[in-house]
Amino acid sequence: MASQEEITPLVGQHQQYASQNRHWGKVKKKTMLMRSMLALSLLFALAGGVWALQHLFHQSPITKKPLPDFSSLRGYCAHTQAIQPNEYIKRQKKLAATLPESSAYVMEGGPTMLYYTNIAWGLSERPFLVVLVADASQPGGIKTTVVTPMFEATRAVEAVKDANLPDEIQPDIVEWIEHGSPYTVTADQVLANISTVFVEPTTRLFIFDGLSQVLENGVNGQGKGVQVASRALQTLRMVKSPAELNILRCVNHATEEAIRQVRPHVNVGMTESDIATLMTRALTTAGLTNTWVLALVDENAAFPHGEPGTTKKVGKDSTVLIDTGGELLGYQSDTTRTFFLGNREDHNQTIVDAWYLVKRAQKNVLDLGHAGSSCAEIDLSARRIITTAGYGRYFTHRLGHGLGMEMHEEPYMNQGNTDQALEVGMTFSVEPGIYVPREFGIRLEDIVVVNEEGQLEVLTSGLADNPWTLRDE
Amino acid sequence: MASQEEITPLVGQHQQYASQNRHWGKVKKKTMLMRSMLALSLLFALAGGVWALQHLFHQSPITKKPLPDFSSLRGYCAHTQAIQPNEYIKRQKKLAATLPESSAYVMEGGPTMLYYTNIAWGLSERPFLVVLVADASQPGGIKTTVVTPMFEATRAVEAVKDANLPDEIQPDIVEWIEHGSPYTVTADQVLANISTVFVEPTTRLFIFDGLSQVLENGVNGQGKGVQVASRALQTLRMVKSPAELNILRCVNHATEEAIRQVRPHVNVGMTESDIATLMTRALTTAGLTNTWVLALVDENAAFPHGEPGTTKKVGKDSTVLIDTGGELLGYQSDTTRTFFLGNREDHNQTIVDAWYLVKRAQKNVLDLGHAGSSCAEIDLSARRIITTAGYGRYFTHRLGHGLGMEMHEEPYMNQGNTDQALEVGMTFSVEPGIYVPREFGIRLEDIVVVNEEGQLEVLTSGLADNPWTLRDE
Repeated sequence: MASQEEITPLVGQHQQYASQNRHWGKVKKKTMLMRSMLALSLLFALAGGVWALQHLFHQSPITKKPLPDFSSLRGYCAHTQAIQPNEYIKRQKKLAATLPESSAYVMEGGPTMLYYTNIAWGLSERPFLVVLVADASQPGGIKTTVVTPMFEATRAVEAVKDANLPDEIQPDIVEWIEHGSPYTVTADQVLANISTVFVEPTTRLFIFDGLSQVLENGVNGQGKGVQVASRALQTLRMVKSPAELNILRCVNHATEEAIRQVRPHVNVGMTESDIATLMTRALTTAGLTNTWVLALVDENAAFPHGEPGTTKKVGKDSTVLIDTGGELLGYQSDTTRTFFLGNREDHNQTIVDAWYLVKRAQKNVLDLGHAGSSCAEIDLSARRIITTAGYGRYFTHRLGHGLGMEMHEEPYMNQGNTDQALEVGMTFSVEPGIYVPREFGIRLEDIVVVNEEGQLEVLTSGLADNPWTLRDE
Repeated sequence: MASQEEITPLVGQHQQYASQNRHWGKVKKKTMLMRSMLALSLLFALAGGVWALQHLFHQSPITKKPLPDFSSLRGYCAHTQAIQPNEYIKRQKKLAATLPESSAYVMEGGPTMLYYTNIAWGLSERPFLVVLVADASQPGGIKTTVVTPMFEATRAVEAVKDANLPDEIQPDIVEWIEHGSPYTVTADQVLANISTVFVEPTTRLFIFDGLSQVLENGVNGQGKGVQVASRALQTLRMVKSPAELNILRCVNHATEEAIRQVRPHVNVGMTESDIATLMTRALTTAGLTNTWVLALVDENAAFPHGEPGTTKKVGKDSTVLIDTGGELLGYQSDTTRTFFLGNREDHNQTIVDAWYLVKRAQKNVLDLGHAGSSCAEIDLSARRIITTAGYGRYFTHRLGHGLGMEMHEEPYMNQGNTDQALEVGMTFSVEPGIYVPREFGIRLEDIVVVNEEGQLEVLTSGLADNPWTLRDE
C-alpha cells in the first residue's frame, strides 16, 4: 500500500543511497569509501568551524551578538526542600478537623489525591479511587483506602510504596475484579458505616453516578448522601503550609529572575518564538520542568491568551509581554512582565501611561488586600483604578487565580466570587491587565501569599519598577 | 541563590571557555581561531566518517548488523481520506433520531465533542461546553450551541472555524462573562425549552453540579431532569461509519505490518527499550502519530501493563511480547503480537502450547461472535477455552475494549457487561492472554469490526499464524 507520490525527499535520498550501493558494488569499495569520507569530512569541518566560532566566543555567527549566558540561574532552587512525609499527617489532620463524623471524601487521581496521599495515578476507564474516611482511631484522624482495579493491583502497590508515606499512614488496598463493580466494592468494604460521601469536584461524572446509584439505592440497607465536596473541604488545599510556601517562593523567584535575565537579550528582529526559546532556556537552566511561555509583541499582546508566533518581530520601540512559568517539586510558578524597547522618550505615551496604570492597580491590591477580604473585593480593588482611568472595558479577565500544585486553582479573584474570603496562607496571582484590540496589551503579574500578619506579601523578589529595565538596581 | 555544588559538568565547560577567552584576549585572536577550527575539524571529520559508514552502507558501525530499513512503510495510509465535513451531518442525524424531544446533550471538550462538532478544546477551570438540542428545523435535526467564556471568545470562534463544519451546521456561540455563571447563561439562552438534559459521562462533576443546581432549582420556572447520558446516546459513537472504518482499517493494518517488519530485527542482546525504539521508528515511518509501545521479554510479559526496561535482554530462545499502536487522522490502532526467537524445537513446550491456546481462544471469538452477542458472551467465548485448559486464573483481564477516536472506549468485552449487545459497525479488540507470574506472558490482539453480515471481521491483514514468523508467506 506504499504510495510513490507520497514519498518524501528523505525516502528519495534513501533510495538514492541504495542504488548507489548497487553501482558501487562493482567498483573497489575502499577507494569510494575514502573519497566519500573526505568529501563529508570537509562538510563537517565547515560545521565544526561554525560551531567553534559560536561556542568559543559565545556569539552567534549570524547576528554577531553574544549568546545569552544563563548559567548563574543553575541550581537556583537546589536547596529547596521537597514536601516531607510527615507533612501528609498534618494535611490529614486538617482534613479530619473539617470532615464531619461518619463522612468520607472520595477522589480520583490528580492534585487532591497527591495532596492528601502523594499517590500518583493517571485516569483511565477503570476507576482508581482514594477514599479518606474520618476515623478517630488513626494517628492523623483519617483512614486512607485505595480502591484499585485488581488488574492494576501490582502497580497500585508500587504507587503506594512510591508515595513514601510516613508509618502513621498505611493505606488499605481494596481491589475490584475486572467484571465487577468498583462502586459496590467501595460501598461494602469502605463506606459501610458512612452516612455522607463527599466527591472531589473534578471527578468524572460516571464515577459520581456509579457511587450514587449504589449508595443511594441503599446497598447497605440505607441510602447515603453522595454530594460534591463542600467549600470547607475545598478550602483546605488553598491554605499553604510553610513547606509549600518555601517551594512556591523559590519557583516564583526563579521565574521572575529568569525574565529579568532574558529581557536585555530581547532585540530588534527577534520573533515571539525566539523570545520563547530564550525564556525556556533560562527557566530550564534554573531547574524548572514543565515550563511554558507566552511571548507577545505589540498589538499581539492584546490577546491575553495569545500564542508566540514566528511572524511578528520585535521593533525598535516594541512593547513585549512575557507570561511564563514552570514547575518545581510539584508546585507551579506564574509571572508576567511587560516591558518596552528603545529610548524612554520615544515610547508611545498612551502605552507608557497604561503600563503605570496597571502597576498602580496591582499596587493598590497589595496595599489594601488582607485576610478576610473577599475575592471579589480583591478583584475590584484593581478594577476600580483601571475603570476610573477609562480602561475598564479593556480589563477583560478576573484579577487572578490561586496557584499551588495547579497553575490555576481556587481561590479565584473574581468580582463574582463574593463568598470566598482570604485566609492566612492562601496564594494567588495579582495580574491586572489592559488589552486594546489591534493596539497593545499590558499585564503585570506577581504571586502573593496572605502572610501571618494577614497582609499580602509578594512571592518574588519584587514588583516591576519601570517598563524599560523592570528593576532599577 | 545559585549553588556552586550543584553546577553540572556543562557549566564547568562554559566557565572553562570563559576563562580561556580571557586568556586568549591577550594573544592574536585570528591565529587561535584557525587552530581551534583545525582541531575541531578533525573531530568532525571522524564523526563524518562514522556517519558516512553508517548511512552509505545501512549498517551500524558498532554491531555490524544492517540497520533496519522501514522505508516501505512510508506513505502507508497516504490515500486514506480524513473524515469529511458532511460526515458531521450524518452524525447529528443519528443523534437526532435518538435524542428524545425537548432534550439536550451537553459535553465538555474531548472525543464526544470532536465526534459531533469537530471542535477541539482542552479542559480548564472555565467551562466550555457544546450543547446539542433536538431541533427538527435544523438540517441535521440538531441545534449546535457553543457556550464559551467571553474571555476566550476569540479562540472559540477560531475553534469553530477550524472545525470546518458543513454549511448545514452553524453553531451559535453564547458567551458567559468572567464574573458570571456559565450555568445560568446555558439555562437561560440554550435550555429554555428543554425538559431533559443529558450530560456526557466523562464531564467533570462540578459542571454537572452547576447545571443541576441552576436547572433543578427551576431558574426558568420549572425543574428539569439533569442526568448522565443514556446508554442509547452512548452507543451512537460505538457504531462506526464506513469513513471511520476506512481509517481504522489502515491504521491497524499499518501497525500489524510494522510489527511484522520489526520482528526479524529483534536480536539476542537487545533490551526491551531497544525493541521499543525500533517499533517507534517503524510506526512513525508509516505516518502514525502519538505512538506508544510495550515491549516485554520472557517473564516480564507476565505483567500485562509492564513498561519496556533497559535491563532485561533478549536471549536466544526468548519470548517477546509487543503491544503497540498510534494515531491516524484522529483514530487509534492497538495490536499485540507475541513471538519466539531461536529454533522451533528448542522452545519451552509449555510456552508454545500456551501460545496456541491463546490463538485458539482468539479464533473462537472470531468464529462465534456476531451482531446480537452480548459483550459478556464475547468475553466468555475466549475465556472458556483458556479456563478449560487450566489457565483460567492466568487470564486476568477482560477480553477487549472498543477502539476508535479513543484507544479504550465503549463497548468493553467484559463478562460482567451483559447489557451491551454487539451491533453492526462496532469495533473492538480481541486480546486473550495468559500471564504466569515470574514465568511468561502471552497475548495476541487484533481489532475487529462487526461487518454488514453481522460477523466479526479482522481490521488487519490477518491473525498471527505461528509464534516464530507470525505469518507464513
